[in-house]
Amino acid sequence: MFRERVQNISLSIRKISEKASKQENCIRFDIGQPSFDTPQHVKKAAKKGLENKQGYSPMLGLEKLREEAAREESTKKGIDIGSEEVMITTGGMGALYAVFSARLEEEDKAVFNDPCWGPYKMISEVSENRWSQVQYWDSDRNLRPEAKEEIRDADLAVVNTPGNPTGYVLTEHQAREIGEFADKHDTFLVSDEVYHRLTFGVEHYSPAAYTADSCIIGSMSKNHAMTGWRTGWVADRPENLEQYAKVSRASTACPPRISQYAAVEALKHDSHVKEMRRAYHERRDLLVKRMQNLDWDFVAPEGAIYAFPEVGEDSWSFCMDMIEKGIAMVPGEPMGPESDQKVRLCFGSTNKEEINEAFDILEEEV
Amino acid sequence: MFRERVQNISLSIRKISEKASKQENCIRFDIGQPSFDTPQHVKKAAKKGLENKQGYSPMLGLEKLREEAAREESTKKGIDIGSEEVMITTGGMGALYAVFSARLEEEDKAVFNDPCWGPYKMISEVSENRWSQVQYWDSDRNLRPEAKEEIRDADLAVVNTPGNPTGYVLTEHQAREIGEFADKHDTFLVSDEVYHRLTFGVEHYSPAAYTADSCIIGSMSKNHAMTGWRTGWVADRPENLEQYAKVSRASTACPPRISQYAAVEALKHDSHVKEMRRAYHERRDLLVKRMQNLDWDFVAPEGAIYAFPEVGEDSWSFCMDMIEKGIAMVPGEPMGPESDQKVRLCFGSTNKEEINEAFDILEEEV
Repeated sequence: MFRERVQNISLSIRKISEKASKQENCIRFDIGQPSFDTPQHVKKAAKKGLENKQGYSPMLGLEKLREEAAREESTKKGIDIGSEEVMITTGGMGALYAVFSARLEEEDKAVFNDPCWGPYKMISEVSENRWSQVQYWDSDRNLRPEAKEEIRDADLAVVNTPGNPTGYVLTEHQAREIGEFADKHDTFLVSDEVYHRLTFGVEHYSPAAYTADSCIIGSMSKNHAMTGWRTGWVADRPENLEQYAKVSRASTACPPRISQYAAVEALKHDSHVKEMRRAYHERRDLLVKRMQNLDWDFVAPEGAIYAFPEVGEDSWSFCMDMIEKGIAMVPGEPMGPESDQKVRLCFGSTNKEEINEAFDILEEEV
Repeated sequence: MFRERVQNISLSIRKISEKASKQENCIRFDIGQPSFDTPQHVKKAAKKGLENKQGYSPMLGLEKLREEAAREESTKKGIDIGSEEVMITTGGMGALYAVFSARLEEEDKAVFNDPCWGPYKMISEVSENRWSQVQYWDSDRNLRPEAKEEIRDADLAVVNTPGNPTGYVLTEHQAREIGEFADKHDTFLVSDEVYHRLTFGVEHYSPAAYTADSCIIGSMSKNHAMTGWRTGWVADRPENLEQYAKVSRASTACPPRISQYAAVEALKHDSHVKEMRRAYHERRDLLVKRMQNLDWDFVAPEGAIYAFPEVGEDSWSFCMDMIEKGIAMVPGEPMGPESDQKVRLCFGSTNKEEINEAFDILEEEV
């Protein structure tokens, strides 16, 4: 027998990757990870790290990495934290799971933006808390009244900037507005900032700077092209980390050690981030230009590695059809009630030639 | 706010390591990990593995590792599985958490042997299922009537052989008895066999061979001195792995990639296991000899890396006192209601000189 809420989790999105992997020469906009490999100097640091005994990591992570992660977080306006306020986790996912599971009883509610990254819902299903989705921002970049209502009522609100799947980046005004609103209404704010180094000509602002009761989720995965290493963190007060650590311990024992040596190096010597960001920026510009030639409605992404256009028809049938034409994208439907005619394109995993090739096809097909 | 059951989890055992780490020249029987480092040829394979792109691992793990883990499990009598029946996880802990969390509703009950490895309880608290503990075996190595009753009533029973904290290893008769009993009463059996390569002159038998509805938990941590790599697995039917994978995905995204290359090599070329086992066997023999000189009641460990003697006084005060004499051990109290006068000594983490030194002190103090 299986738990009902776990059993009911749909893995429908897998249909896309399964179909795409069977399609010859398929251009993969569906895969949410960098086309870049982990930088060589980071791999070299991992090799050097192997000289150490590969025993358990301290539960909260290697001190050196906690220091580097704290330094990284403290580059954000209004954030100034020490290493004792960082817990290293098995990826940003491990951090999110620990926070949800440590904080939310079955009757407690988390609120997410509409659209949002699908796994917030999956984490809620496994961790067994209630959740709802509401569009946070109006077109003038102010919190919508409906969003205020939901955030006020929720026990925990997730804000994600730069955002997946939209590439939307909060302005300073927005970061402040949602931070202060959560603070005023005692809603714990989970600020998922795993793409914070990837913005295109705009600044990143942390909503966590504007509320006392919040945590920041960080990760090596996207900013440093280190998805396979499973290294992320949660930044919060030490007494809160102690509660998260119980979940982290019960579900993983501790984060992997060798990955932490690599992460220290990547954070210390990070010129690769600038290079990758430049490449993503170019791809973003190209993608926007090519999308303008189609009859698609979209907001140009300002960060992260995703675009989220409206394609004017059912996202599932559109995506399934397009795979047969050689282009894999993710349907928006699982990402929120308002997104069933939208699709997510990851330009992190595709180069410019692939983008051009795909849009040559799309211009004929759409 | 935090979830009540998470907040109530006691980290009391940490008192031991905190006190011990402040005590100069303390002999650390409290640390449950091998004194050995990961073998050089395994580290070399990790270096070679770095030549691959370090992207996300497949959710169920690298195919090569699934194959090696299946081969490893199939060396056990009555076990014959294929790679499609193995899911790689973030350590054995990740496997256990996935199984508990995928299977047990809040009202469902898991049963553990008394004594048992503490984290089974912690996993249950985080995953929010009921649990109970009962002494499984009588002195003739038969299932006790009380154990039968509990296993019959439970939704899930954990059997751990070789066992932590006792070093107890089930005979073929015992493996069969508990397997067949669980099968007959439709209790799902979780067979935690993470120490299966570490037995001293006795054979390892898998209880999973005797029941249709069971899973095996495996790990690289202790058998191969690879605790820091966080690589383990659960072996079960593919349709069950699909449910576990949802929990694994929600809590970790996927297992770390680089560790999996290392694990493949360790399983393929495993002469290091024999060498480490020989060293543990010698330490076990020495420890048994030295314990015989004390007024301690104990059963000689037949496997794993632990002894669990009865010291004739409160385990907490005994352990706290002994740290001041330079010997760190873990109190039995958190491991089960019958163990409050027992202590766990890990001879995996200590060499013969340290064992002798510690017992020279104990002979004067006890």
